[in-house]
Amino acid sequence: MSRLIEYADATPEVRAVFDAIMTARGVADVNNFWKALAVHPPTLRRTWESLREVMAPGALDPLTKELLYLAVSASNGCDYCIASHRKAAEAKGMTAEMFGELLAVVGMANETNRLANALRVPVDPAFED
Amino acid sequence: MSRLIEYADATPEVRAVFDAIMTARGVADVNNFWKALAVHPPTLRRTWESLREVMAPGALDPLTKELLYLAVSASNGCDYCIASHRKAAEAKGMTAEMFGELLAVVGMANETNRLANALRVPVDPAFED
Amino acid sequence: MSRLIEYADATPEVRAVFDAIMTARGVADVNNFWKALAVHPPTLRRTWESLREVMAPGALDPLTKELLYLAVSASNGCDYCIASHRKAAEAKGMTAEMFGELLAVVGMANETNRLANALRVPVDPAFED
Amino acid sequence: MSRLIEYADATPEVRAVFDAIMTARGVADVNNFWKALAVHPPTLRRTWESLREVMAPGALDPLTKELLYLAVSASNGCDYCIASHRKAAEAKGMTAEMFGELLAVVGMANETNRLANALRVPVDPAFED
Amino acid sequence: MSRLIEYADATPEVRAVFDAIMTARGVADVNNFWKALAVHPPTLRRTWESLREVMAPGALDPLTKELLYLAVSASNGCDYCIASHRKAAEAKGMTAEMFGELLAVVGMANETNRLANALRVPVDPAFED
Amino acid sequence: MSRLIEYADATPEVRAVFDAIMTARGVADVNNFWKALAVHPPTLRRTWESLREVMAPGALDPLTKELLYLAVSASNGCDYCIASHRKAAEAKGMTAEMFGELLAVVGMANETNRLANALRVPVDPAFED
Repeated sequence: MSRLIEYADATPEVRAVFDAIMTARGVADVNNFWKALAVHPPTLRRTWESLREVMAPGALDPLTKELLYLAVSASNGCDYCIASHRKAAEAKGMTAEMFGELLAVVGMANETNRLANALRVPVDPAFED
Repeated sequence: MSRLIEYADATPEVRAVFDAIMTARGVADVNNFWKALAVHPPTLRRTWESLREVMAPGALDPLTKELLYLAVSASNGCDYCIASHRKAAEAKGMTAEMFGELLAVVGMANETNRLANALRVPVDPAFED
Repeated sequence: MSRLIEYADATPEVRAVFDAIMTARGVADVNNFWKALAVHPPTLRRTWESLREVMAPGALDPLTKELLYLAVSASNGCDYCIASHRKAAEAKGMTAEMFGELLAVVGMANETNRLANALRVPVDPAFED
Repeated sequence: MSRLIEYADATPEVRAVFDAIMTARGVADVNNFWKALAVHPPTLRRTWESLREVMAPGALDPLTKELLYLAVSASNGCDYCIASHRKAAEAKGMTAEMFGELLAVVGMANETNRLANALRVPVDPAFED
Repeated sequence: MSRLIEYADATPEVRAVFDAIMTARGVADVNNFWKALAVHPPTLRRTWESLREVMAPGALDPLTKELLYLAVSASNGCDYCIASHRKAAEAKGMTAEMFGELLAVVGMANETNRLANALRVPVDPAFED
Repeated sequence: MSRLIEYADATPEVRAVFDAIMTARGVADVNNFWKALAVHPPTLRRTWESLREVMAPGALDPLTKELLYLAVSASNGCDYCIASHRKAAEAKGMTAEMFGELLAVVGMANETNRLANALRVPVDPAFED
């Protein structure tokens, strides 16, 4: 497991990112992902700035974005990401029923992705334009 | 590439599934995925029945389900699936802006999934309850 | 696409591996994988020797090994590998019905693998001993 | 980790699936995968019905199907699935020697899948018909 | 395939990123990845800025970074990325011999990653501190 | 978790490989990966011989090879492999700063791999020759 850098031990550069995260999220501490990522301050800063931009409300609402994030994390089998983004999705309104349906779609997509690959299905011309 | 089984050459068992797909979708022919999957009629039938059930409106609306399907397919790099589900998502209302934001989330999730794995981040107790 | 090294243009080191493959398989030419891999003779040689050892009859018969190879390749979405190992499996006795059932298992495993990950299912004690 | 739903706390809909699993397998309790999946009864039911159909004896015998399932799970790195399907395969006759050879094939396929991708090897015309 | 946005048809926002890429790389046109990504200008801009920062010389030299990028792309089977990053690596000094050895490491890592997963190997205490 | 075979309990065939590993690395015991792999002596032997050959100094120096191994393992999410190859890379000279930059490249490559796949970007003719 990685070393986790706590606020008290962080450099000013790291603290500035931690402060930005805590302010944006209205929380009193950052979660372990950020404490671990603090081993490389430039990646910490860039990742936070990118995440903030990508997850901001836009043509897709924040809950939908969080569902997509969770679906990809579940598909990739990232245990930490599944745990953290499930909590984040629930905080934004994902119900147990919605999580169940998300699971079903992720499972189904992983199944048919392999069927399509295995059968080497040629893309229909109607899908190409 | 796999052999594609056209309706005219299909067995009654396969035709019954093709008919069900065409009726449910209001189309005059099934796309190549189903024609390729018809090499194994039990898998054709089961896949269609599962897909119909999973993608039906529920706690998640059909567009959201299609976005999740597309996100997983993009993350997995299934070329056929990306092409077909992008069309399906567009038919259900996905705009170019929404597709762009979906792309951004898929890319970001794939990036942070690897950062979390690489750093072996321990799951926060707050995510476990 | 990679440069393919034909026998006529190959070094003696590469020709020796090509000869071994052709002899072992009773074919008049090696397939493209080996011609491409010949860009790095040590990897060509080591890969062939490992493959020959791994795929030899043992506690698992050659057809079962080929089915496993095809299942993994289908799961990974390696297009070349799916095409070549499907042919190899057919040459060893895989029927259309067997291929269909293999497809079904690969699809199902990919689906339940994601369900298990997404639900973060704890391993049953009975599976640990 | 997900909440596990025990039989005593399950709804009639969930109990019906648990009963079906226990009867089919001749066991006194279902394993954790099903208890976790019970958070979404439609996915629980559909997954069980699909699994039962896919894993039934057919052109491939039950042991071969279980080996394929295990190989895909190992390739995907699904820890729960590896543990549970290894036990299932052993119950159907997989010996230590067979497991060792399965490992070797899975490892080799993952290696050559990447070599083929990295070299962008064109599919041989002989593999296309 | 995606629509490619050429410079002549691009908005000022997109042109600014294209200009930055062409200047940084000393080329007369951007490659297709950027033309495709231009369908979503915020993702185009953010991706370019992140890439420029990540790939800049640092504790790792530019060739090593490019080799790492190529290795990950080969492992993931991204055809476009393999083609483009192989060219980029060659431009920075990757020889045929270096590419061959990179291939061998990528293949080997993919093999042993699966062996370690399949065997569910516990992490040695010496690796945890 | 797999059974770990200790030297004292190993067959002569397994001990010979353990001895070779300990001699080559100058260590008093092999790490858990090898103890687990000893359940299948032919795979143990072949894997060690392949690894020794692949990781030997060549056109790429040992540190660069170890960085590539770690990058692939991080990308694949193999927890054991990340832990063991991070230690191995540090022993060969990887600094915290180098690890941070490696992380950044792995994350970025995983992000852009998915963007390229999702956009189905056609390979530039300039990358094909």
